[in-house]
Amino acid sequence: GDPLVIAGKAYTSRLLVGTGKYKDLAVTGAAVEMSGAEIVTVAIRRTNIGQDPGQPNLLDVIPPDRYTLLPNTAGCYTVDDAVRTCRLARELLGGHRLVKLEVLGDPTTLFPDVTATLEAAEILVRDGFDVMVYTNDDPIIAKRLEDIGCVAVMPLAAPIGSGLGIRNPYNILTIVENAKVPVLVDAGVGTASDAAVAMELGCDGVLMNTAIAEAKNPVLMASAMKKAIEAGREAFLAGRMPRRRFASASSPLAGLFFD
Amino acid sequence: GDPLVIAGKAYTSRLLVGTGKYKDLAVTGAAVEMSGAEIVTVAIRRTNIGQDPGQPNLLDVIPPDRYTLLPNTAGCYTVDDAVRTCRLARELLGGHRLVKLEVLGDPTTLFPDVTATLEAAEILVRDGFDVMVYTNDDPIIAKRLEDIGCVAVMPLAAPIGSGLGIRNPYNILTIVENAKVPVLVDAGVGTASDAAVAMELGCDGVLMNTAIAEAKNPVLMASAMKKAIEAGREAFLAGRMPRRRFASASSPLAGLFFD
Amino acid sequence: GDPLVIAGKAYTSRLLVGTGKYKDLAVTGAAVEMSGAEIVTVAIRRTNIGQDPGQPNLLDVIPPDRYTLLPNTAGCYTVDDAVRTCRLARELLGGHRLVKLEVLGDPTTLFPDVTATLEAAEILVRDGFDVMVYTNDDPIIAKRLEDIGCVAVMPLAAPIGSGLGIRNPYNILTIVENAKVPVLVDAGVGTASDAAVAMELGCDGVLMNTAIAEAKNPVLMASAMKKAIEAGREAFLAGRMPRRRFASASSPLAGLFFD
Amino acid sequence: GDPLVIAGKAYTSRLLVGTGKYKDLAVTGAAVEMSGAEIVTVAIRRTNIGQDPGQPNLLDVIPPDRYTLLPNTAGCYTVDDAVRTCRLARELLGGHRLVKLEVLGDPTTLFPDVTATLEAAEILVRDGFDVMVYTNDDPIIAKRLEDIGCVAVMPLAAPIGSGLGIRNPYNILTIVENAKVPVLVDAGVGTASDAAVAMELGCDGVLMNTAIAEAKNPVLMASAMKKAIEAGREAFLAGRMPRRRFASASSPLAGLFFD
Repeated sequence: GDPLVIAGKAYTSRLLVGTGKYKDLAVTGAAVEMSGAEIVTVAIRRTNIGQDPGQPNLLDVIPPDRYTLLPNTAGCYTVDDAVRTCRLARELLGGHRLVKLEVLGDPTTLFPDVTATLEAAEILVRDGFDVMVYTNDDPIIAKRLEDIGCVAVMPLAAPIGSGLGIRNPYNILTIVENAKVPVLVDAGVGTASDAAVAMELGCDGVLMNTAIAEAKNPVLMASAMKKAIEAGREAFLAGRMPRRRFASASSPLAGLFFD
Repeated sequence: GDPLVIAGKAYTSRLLVGTGKYKDLAVTGAAVEMSGAEIVTVAIRRTNIGQDPGQPNLLDVIPPDRYTLLPNTAGCYTVDDAVRTCRLARELLGGHRLVKLEVLGDPTTLFPDVTATLEAAEILVRDGFDVMVYTNDDPIIAKRLEDIGCVAVMPLAAPIGSGLGIRNPYNILTIVENAKVPVLVDAGVGTASDAAVAMELGCDGVLMNTAIAEAKNPVLMASAMKKAIEAGREAFLAGRMPRRRFASASSPLAGLFFD
Repeated sequence: GDPLVIAGKAYTSRLLVGTGKYKDLAVTGAAVEMSGAEIVTVAIRRTNIGQDPGQPNLLDVIPPDRYTLLPNTAGCYTVDDAVRTCRLARELLGGHRLVKLEVLGDPTTLFPDVTATLEAAEILVRDGFDVMVYTNDDPIIAKRLEDIGCVAVMPLAAPIGSGLGIRNPYNILTIVENAKVPVLVDAGVGTASDAAVAMELGCDGVLMNTAIAEAKNPVLMASAMKKAIEAGREAFLAGRMPRRRFASASSPLAGLFFD
Repeated sequence: GDPLVIAGKAYTSRLLVGTGKYKDLAVTGAAVEMSGAEIVTVAIRRTNIGQDPGQPNLLDVIPPDRYTLLPNTAGCYTVDDAVRTCRLARELLGGHRLVKLEVLGDPTTLFPDVTATLEAAEILVRDGFDVMVYTNDDPIIAKRLEDIGCVAVMPLAAPIGSGLGIRNPYNILTIVENAKVPVLVDAGVGTASDAAVAMELGCDGVLMNTAIAEAKNPVLMASAMKKAIEAGREAFLAGRMPRRRFASASSPLAGLFFD
């Protein structure tokens, strides 16, 4: 009834998950399955999806006939590296077009380099890729990435791997209000309520990895995240009650909120 | 596997709902059903559960054989009124012991009068009631209500009907850490993520009314709340990742958080 | 032009300070002087103000002819202890009437025991004391303490010694809006902006100790706090601009704020 | 003892103010004087500083021998416009080098266009200007602007004219930690405590306009801001106490904070 459509394909789940940082492939597979995710992102430079035939292969637990693979450019700090990595993924996956572009600016913060990201996005779109793109939470940059032709814009909630939740909901909201393509929060979610908040802001989905992989019980956290995404989406669609200082207030709160 | 036990009875659902402010009884019934709630609270002084045989009866949509009714003392501002209301409920419901006590201090804020609440709780406990008790978020008062023998302590997240979410998570956490009886957030939840946050803090459940009844689509919001409560509970049990400023940080964040 | 009036006496400074936790009396004296405070609180049970003639005497650095001493009942957990401590202070200080009442509920949280506080306040007011009273941030309790005849109500911002700042600005605001006596935030301020926020909410003053005493440079922090209190007071009186999402917004923000 | 040094010149005040949105020039002059600001920014495209000899001239109330004028490019949406505006300012002000660059991306949000800003900054630095530069709160962009040779980096706290305060303190803190040039918060401050928070994060200064000009009493708010900036700076230098959940806590808070 309420599909997420990316690059013309409809998905039931609005939770996208990564595959890094798990104890072993068995846990990876179990957590991904429990999450209900249909799109699974893979760091091409760090993950064996067949490049090394003698090693454990991620695709054994994430079979490409069941999941939409989303190769990503994690670890790329230049336009060239990112573009080359996407092309490698396309080869390895038999013409696969859907990729997640990230060009990092700094190994400490893992913030995107937005100027390099814009440049790489242009090249990849021209080259026929369907580009989902990791970016900061600047609404101007988000709009430009959409204008370039990216199929989804993916602002960070907080630094990758931080678990700090949505640091600037206003910026995410502004991006959502201005977008004509899906907006998915990517990076920074730490627990279930963070994911729900993203959806309540009107985001079309959330991509996460560490929040599940580094929970004490990743499989149970995957279930929590699945439900939180659905809860947040339904709350967004249901239309929340107004905030008021008191039930007796005749009108909703104006300008009194604290942070 | 993870029941909520109140007064010796085990419940699967950790979401408790009210029945006020709905457009009509049909919506009330549909929303309550969708919420999955097993305990449904009823404002005895404002709701016809048979006192007036010629009027629509709430029990037609909330059949007592399917739900645990939780008569409450909404609208009571004195010890006497609250105690009398509980006794009336016991009569109307054929010896029913479980009640939610609230003694209000002020018609604007709807904050509890905690000294009257302590007094009424003592009387009701002595009188054989199983008392779930609405209170402020002061950990000292919460502990005293537990010591009196209340079967559950129900601190407010924010003023009744405000939808402001959990204004002081530290206080709720402190109450949870010190409690030996179930702690349920009562009042102030506005949307799904608020409910998830309550559960992630370790609360045993959440009671809400306005957030569902005053959503644009109450039945869909009831579904959102059901999932949010489960998501928050599972996230709590799964054990969230630590917060860090950056993924590269060698140790979790200490003392740097902002609000 | 804008005095703080407590028990009929006008003060220029709205910053009240404590005297505990300093390295030595010299630093205590220097920090108190730099703060500009005119009212200085003293924990009668822990401080030598002449009880022990052979030991260093606080009054050597806080001369009672320059400062209004505010004996407090820190460390008292019962009505009797608190009342007795106030009477002792009155004796030691030659009939002094102004006291700060605190009756603690718990040695971990140092939250007040509000029921004991109410009882002690009644006794002390009847006994002729001018009672400034430490309490939680419950507006109902605050009003009742005012009704008993306390000359100032002093809700906590956060636990004593925590430095967490104002955890629930709504409650403080509600107390301020309802009060006819001065409201001073007592406990929980950690840095200068916390003090400014308290004043911007309309509080009449702030009492603090740890935030100054445990700063790396207590004397410089005392200066910061003096300016922050004045800044917050002036900002309150000046009337801040409305919050808006954007400068272009035609009307102030309503119900969109995040926390 | 603690000067702010920009482009080799030392200033005592860390508060920079704008001159727009005041009722009349008399109030502008009075508020600027009360603020203690030594650097005053002027929107060259909107302000008469002599271009129109028959109209009131801002320099009558902001005499250039008393203040350092900071011409800014408010209202410029392209590299060309911004560069041309700076050159016009240099002419009008007899070879003046210090400018504030802003290239806007969008008339609604007034967010910067960071790619155009980077380009304009390169041109202006090469052209001999001392460039203070308005930017978003992305640490990667801030560093690049510093590397280009800007003499100060000025991230937004929140949208221009919003009064929302510092929406993402983590980002501001990261910019401060990485910077070798002064970092000044520019835009978004709404009241005194916001300014204090900026300084407590380690910022070197704050530039504001609307918060003073649109206060009910601009001159009093200017005084509040002066004190808030000093308070925040002193609190930063003094070294605040650690945050703890309770005074009794043996170690500072780690990872427990809420937002």
